[in-house]
Amino acid sequence: ARPRVGYFFSGKHQGEIYSKRLRLLKVKDYKSIPVVINEKSTAYDAMCMMFMEDLGTVFVTREEEGLIVLVGLVSKKDLLKIAVAQQNMPEIPISMVMTRTPHIITVAPTDSLYEAAQKIVEFHVNCLPVINKQNGKNELVGLISRTTITRVFVELGSLKTV
Amino acid sequence: ARPRVGYFFSGKHQGEIYSKRLRLLKVKDYKSIPVVINEKSTAYDAMCMMFMEDLGTVFVTREEEGLIVLVGLVSKKDLLKIAVAQQNMPEIPISMVMTRTPHIITVAPTDSLYEAAQKIVEFHVNCLPVINKQNGKNELVGLISRTTITRVFVELGSLKTV
Repeated sequence: ARPRVGYFFSGKHQGEIYSKRLRLLKVKDYKSIPVVINEKSTAYDAMCMMFMEDLGTVFVTREEEGLIVLVGLVSKKDLLKIAVAQQNMPEIPISMVMTRTPHIITVAPTDSLYEAAQKIVEFHVNCLPVINKQNGKNELVGLISRTTITRVFVELGSLKTV
Repeated sequence: ARPRVGYFFSGKHQGEIYSKRLRLLKVKDYKSIPVVINEKSTAYDAMCMMFMEDLGTVFVTREEEGLIVLVGLVSKKDLLKIAVAQQNMPEIPISMVMTRTPHIITVAPTDSLYEAAQKIVEFHVNCLPVINKQNGKNELVGLISRTTITRVFVELGSLKTV
């Protein structure tokens, strides 16, 4: 079998120290800006947005009392399914194709990046919306994706003495 | 601005040591098995494979002198484009929609995971085929994706003293 990651970090508890430090990295400091679409949009609107912004996921939201509240998400796979069925995208409401909030895996701003990465791997998702729970509302405040984690991995491999 | 990754690894050169160790992780020890499709297939075949295997990318290959040689790749976005154009996928050769090898960003088995992650971020790709150059042929021997990097990140955050 391949050498485990820990093999390269052995000796004098170094591995454990690095893990503890890595777990200090917080979602709130690394989240990126999610691309959102209003829940009254069509599947076609979502598709155009994905192509224009080169995205894999669009978040479906509504505004409630000044908050951007998450109600669903749409992936490229969702759109591919309906496109292949040759349905008329401009006539399909986004709410018919999206995954709804109760089924979406999320993270909180105060979670660690490590916890976020665990969820991405465990639930086989590309990204996680960052949700601030406010008065029972799911305020969408960001996004953590596999790209976020990959960028941080590059930063970890580029550290200099500070 | 957010605290840099290095902030958590400062003191007594720990950050630099950590980076050097991380760069020892090699592509050849972490690559996963790519899902391939023969170059004579159709766009419909690729789409079915993506849905069955829950993939974002399928590699298009041919066999040459016993080697599986990479000739192209097809992403979900490529398929979404033709599906939306309502073209007849079973009649479209995969070679018409794929990105061809000269335009594909690759890594070698002996590259570091760090270099692979840099390429994923720099070129905005989801994954990299791992290519073993043999007598001028691009032998496809694996795959490194953002999921690979995310899994390693989770391992880094889980290290115990060994």
